[in-house]
Amino acid sequence: MRKNGRLNNETRKINFTRNYTKYAPGSVLVEFGDTKVLVCATVENVKPKWMDKSSTSGWVTAEYSLLPASTNVRCTRERTKVSGRTQEIQRLIGRSLRACVDLEKLGERTITIDADVIQADGGTRVASICGGYIALCDVIEKLRKDGELIENPIIEPIAAISAGIVDGEVVVDLNYDEDCTAEVDGNIVLTKSGKIVEFQTTAEGGTFTKTELDKIFEYAKNAINQIIQMY
Amino acid sequence: MRKNGRLNNETRKINFTRNYTKYAPGSVLVEFGDTKVLVCATVENVKPKWMDKSSTSGWVTAEYSLLPASTNVRCTRERTKVSGRTQEIQRLIGRSLRACVDLEKLGERTITIDADVIQADGGTRVASICGGYIALCDVIEKLRKDGELIENPIIEPIAAISAGIVDGEVVVDLNYDEDCTAEVDGNIVLTKSGKIVEFQTTAEGGTFTKTELDKIFEYAKNAINQIIQMY
Amino acid sequence: MRKNGRLNNETRKINFTRNYTKYAPGSVLVEFGDTKVLVCATVENVKPKWMDKSSTSGWVTAEYSLLPASTNVRCTRERTKVSGRTQEIQRLIGRSLRACVDLEKLGERTITIDADVIQADGGTRVASICGGYIALCDVIEKLRKDGELIENPIIEPIAAISAGIVDGEVVVDLNYDEDCTAEVDGNIVLTKSGKIVEFQTTAEGGTFTKTELDKIFEYAKNAINQIIQMY
Amino acid sequence: MRKNGRLNNETRKINFTRNYTKYAPGSVLVEFGDTKVLVCATVENVKPKWMDKSSTSGWVTAEYSLLPASTNVRCTRERTKVSGRTQEIQRLIGRSLRACVDLEKLGERTITIDADVIQADGGTRVASICGGYIALCDVIEKLRKDGELIENPIIEPIAAISAGIVDGEVVVDLNYDEDCTAEVDGNIVLTKSGKIVEFQTTAEGGTFTKTELDKIFEYAKNAINQIIQMY
Amino acid sequence: MRKNGRLNNETRKINFTRNYTKYAPGSVLVEFGDTKVLVCATVENVKPKWMDKSSTSGWVTAEYSLLPASTNVRCTRERTKVSGRTQEIQRLIGRSLRACVDLEKLGERTITIDADVIQADGGTRVASICGGYIALCDVIEKLRKDGELIENPIIEPIAAISAGIVDGEVVVDLNYDEDCTAEVDGNIVLTKSGKIVEFQTTAEGGTFTKTELDKIFEYAKNAINQIIQMY
Amino acid sequence: MRKNGRLNNETRKINFTRNYTKYAPGSVLVEFGDTKVLVCATVENVKPKWMDKSSTSGWVTAEYSLLPASTNVRCTRERTKVSGRTQEIQRLIGRSLRACVDLEKLGERTITIDADVIQADGGTRVASICGGYIALCDVIEKLRKDGELIENPIIEPIAAISAGIVDGEVVVDLNYDEDCTAEVDGNIVLTKSGKIVEFQTTAEGGTFTKTELDKIFEYAKNAINQIIQMY
Repeated sequence: MRKNGRLNNETRKINFTRNYTKYAPGSVLVEFGDTKVLVCATVENVKPKWMDKSSTSGWVTAEYSLLPASTNVRCTRERTKVSGRTQEIQRLIGRSLRACVDLEKLGERTITIDADVIQADGGTRVASICGGYIALCDVIEKLRKDGELIENPIIEPIAAISAGIVDGEVVVDLNYDEDCTAEVDGNIVLTKSGKIVEFQTTAEGGTFTKTELDKIFEYAKNAINQIIQMY
Repeated sequence: MRKNGRLNNETRKINFTRNYTKYAPGSVLVEFGDTKVLVCATVENVKPKWMDKSSTSGWVTAEYSLLPASTNVRCTRERTKVSGRTQEIQRLIGRSLRACVDLEKLGERTITIDADVIQADGGTRVASICGGYIALCDVIEKLRKDGELIENPIIEPIAAISAGIVDGEVVVDLNYDEDCTAEVDGNIVLTKSGKIVEFQTTAEGGTFTKTELDKIFEYAKNAINQIIQMY
Repeated sequence: MRKNGRLNNETRKINFTRNYTKYAPGSVLVEFGDTKVLVCATVENVKPKWMDKSSTSGWVTAEYSLLPASTNVRCTRERTKVSGRTQEIQRLIGRSLRACVDLEKLGERTITIDADVIQADGGTRVASICGGYIALCDVIEKLRKDGELIENPIIEPIAAISAGIVDGEVVVDLNYDEDCTAEVDGNIVLTKSGKIVEFQTTAEGGTFTKTELDKIFEYAKNAINQIIQMY
Repeated sequence: MRKNGRLNNETRKINFTRNYTKYAPGSVLVEFGDTKVLVCATVENVKPKWMDKSSTSGWVTAEYSLLPASTNVRCTRERTKVSGRTQEIQRLIGRSLRACVDLEKLGERTITIDADVIQADGGTRVASICGGYIALCDVIEKLRKDGELIENPIIEPIAAISAGIVDGEVVVDLNYDEDCTAEVDGNIVLTKSGKIVEFQTTAEGGTFTKTELDKIFEYAKNAINQIIQMY
Repeated sequence: MRKNGRLNNETRKINFTRNYTKYAPGSVLVEFGDTKVLVCATVENVKPKWMDKSSTSGWVTAEYSLLPASTNVRCTRERTKVSGRTQEIQRLIGRSLRACVDLEKLGERTITIDADVIQADGGTRVASICGGYIALCDVIEKLRKDGELIENPIIEPIAAISAGIVDGEVVVDLNYDEDCTAEVDGNIVLTKSGKIVEFQTTAEGGTFTKTELDKIFEYAKNAINQIIQMY
Repeated sequence: MRKNGRLNNETRKINFTRNYTKYAPGSVLVEFGDTKVLVCATVENVKPKWMDKSSTSGWVTAEYSLLPASTNVRCTRERTKVSGRTQEIQRLIGRSLRACVDLEKLGERTITIDADVIQADGGTRVASICGGYIALCDVIEKLRKDGELIENPIIEPIAAISAGIVDGEVVVDLNYDEDCTAEVDGNIVLTKSGKIVEFQTTAEGGTFTKTELDKIFEYAKNAINQIIQMY
């Protein structure tokens, strides 16, 4: 058993509170234990400027930020430049959500996912992906109600979870304490049918085996199944 | 009566939820009607770098930010530069809170007030000042419990409210709709005993009389009295 | 009597030298005692980009800067970012001048007021507003002479003065020494007919009473009357 | 067979030219087919500033850049901000190389790996990791010759290769044309003994199966074995 | 004769008004015809941070800026980045002034020359060098009076002038109209004894002969002699 | 004879390797002894944005950068701002190359010269100009082959060389060691027929005579003749 009392393949209590704010058409407070992320989705009826003019496709993009007091020790606001860590997380969220949307069907609009971390206890990026999926669904639902979108562009539900190796054991949904001492750190994004969207595993200061990688996949798959059933 | 059904001198429902997050020693969710601001206070045991080396004084500073989806239309994150509006608000919050603290008694430490607006329906800067006062008190209380601070450096409670002229009428606690059409826009910060900390009234595209200024003061004073009784 | 020999309600010697430079259509050297500000007004025949395309209105905006050697101790050029103080001052100058211009009558053009402080001995922002008003009038006069503007868009003259509390006494037109030790610091912008455009009073590290606020208004009003007669 | 005539599990011609420049103690021109990266390693005899003062450890960090004319269409120099893509690549190179060095044995010095892409035909980040490993070894060799380092801090050789899915087939060492149309894009870093340092696979606009992931691993492992034999 | 009525080797009316502002120890308004530059010199009693700790030398550096309304068409303030033109001019001013100062004798202090152009009618950089020399002398004089400096570190007076080719004729001290149409543009800095400090001649869109270069030198030398006699 | 064994008027071994990379239409590795610069030329079929809309002219511009490990001590990448030195060099390269091109004949296209220094042993800017001339010719040749350009816009070949005073002697083509101790530093750009494009000579901490300037010109002219014969 882990220091926090959980089994190796056991996630924290996960909760989604939809319609959390009044202006954004999609808005959800995601809780993975003490990790709390406010994820909002908003729409603009234009495609991104970099997209080819002839394209009839839409886009999904993401921004991620830690509130300064969300962390153990206050973290600095990113007001003059965005750190590499933040950019990596934003790119992961955006890429993952684009994998579950037919951008042609979405049409010439841009959906922005804003993930703002209110309390950070590990796993904020995977919580943001799960919340992003829900907020995205709520925006699309609203667009369809308003008659702006006929066909549902969602291909298949996705969810994400962290997994890694702590004290030599493969575990899922690491909290901050586990994250700090993890030998291997991974983030896995899968679809409802078990297909892989992202599989990222990293050894900071060490290495791991293919057998451990397989176990990480197995645990992540089970956790993601449970999360998708909560949507 | 106003479009929103309130009397001219009537504020919205105001609410403070203390200890809103787990890491910051002071943390409060402030609600002025639909305006929701998360205000956190954190401490560093050093005085600011710009302060004279011989000084034994502390400092209170503030940062303010709108979450992108907090506004009617999504607002851009301030990631490369901070707007003039944000800087003005930050300076106002910091200056107001320093007015109610004996910085010498605070000692060589810096308290940072982070005001992050989750939902913006007018009056976010005055809500931040009220929340900042509470978060500041909670931090100081904690420092005293921990034996790091003997004497209470708080001089006197303060609170703040917006007031202005809408459709020719002096009103308090303007919501976003009123703010947009206001002829005069003001922010007033007073102490419990009715002393003035800040009195800022601005006519954007017009002018107003001394008599109206006096009425703005009167309404603000009453509203601030009510807020201070809620602390 | 004040340390500088002036009465509490007495301003320094104020002087305006019009047509100070050769290229700008409006250009004035403003002197409030040892405070010297070069204020120039220039026109572009386009409205700002952020303005709604359907609008037929013009705009007045301001930029403010201290020359490095204008202050007691050399101040750093703002070459990578503009400080909060500078932005506050620029916004105040622009807002004040827009209050005395009918932007519709001005038509689709942008007037930029550049206030560059050559010597800073307190009150630079109010000197900039007074100089800005004159430079604005000179530009408009030139536009009318050139037949580009038929009707005069100026609504009513404005002027500005600083006032505050120094050593417990309400005083007007603080010089740098007074400013440094002031308990209360205020900037007041009024029209010729005594209407209020801006009333900003701030206690840095202290508080003041409504009676003192009233006296600040009284003194400022008299000083502003005198300045407007000099135009 | 692939469009470029290679088998699915076949890499391009790989070549390393050591001692390519005269100033850097480690410097290698890496060629993976038409991809050419100049990788240099330099040493500073200080640990990074962010490292704890009591630490006796060293650090390995990396910077990556595309020369403007290295790509098909000229790419803009990153002179005001560094893109998310560049930051991700730099972080990957640094993290991978730190995995094969005992930072305690390295001692209080910082080794910087500069990877500058002279010609980009796919796989520049994995080429940079392989070249970085060689440049790192050459620096360490020089430090040992100079008597500045007694024990070899290298734990085990590493190498990296790209692998992914193109036209439904798992392939290794994608060139630019393959990269553009790939359904799945992966970068794998392994040690000589087959342990995993990084395993990143991403589906941009699609998904893939665990069986395909296993094949990606298999192909990458064989390619990496061949590369390590070339060192 | 030139369009402006001057002979080819004739400068405009040149004037220096010393002690132009009250705070800076050296401050001069330089006029070359309609070109007006305010040049101030200030001292800090530290050497620059980049200088070797063991050095006992001082430094002279320069900053240059155009006031927005100084030019024919309003120019943008350099508030986020400094243009290449500005940097070139600053470097030229600093380098030229360092050539006439014994930095060892100056001791561990930094003199900053601020050249702010109030009206720009050509030749602002050479006017800044001449004014910079005077402001530098005045600062040094003050340091000597105050007993902070015993020996005079000035080696020899310098002055600067522009010269070039306009309509096929070599001319000195080009005004803005001449500058715009010049085939060759040069800036020459000489000492009182005729030694060269800087000789920069540039053909923008064309070429010139060695004979013309020699004539540029001749004319510049005579003009500089006259300026130095005015000091 | 010089410390490096060369005569005062003798250059290092100069070499140009054309078609050095595969994507850029013009690309040359320039070697002046141990100085190695990769110069590439690319074309965009638009004129610069700042150019007047009615113009039918083209433009040639340049960017210059030192690879971090190209210098004796690793130099920092210019990723947030471009230094004054870099900007001066870029401007010099661009201006020099524009002097040998008829921009009207070039037509509405922009040619960008990228000079990236792989190894820096003095004279990188003049090597960049020579390489830039060759890369420019190769681009133009390609445009003509492709039928996009009928007439050759090249007016006359140019080349550049450094010259200066070291240990009291006028010398050409200074290497890094000579550059560090040079009393006078110059860069000369001439056409094949001996006309001057740029003549820049600078005394850092000293002065020099007209006779020395003449000798600098003489030596530079001979060296440039030799270089042009190598094209």
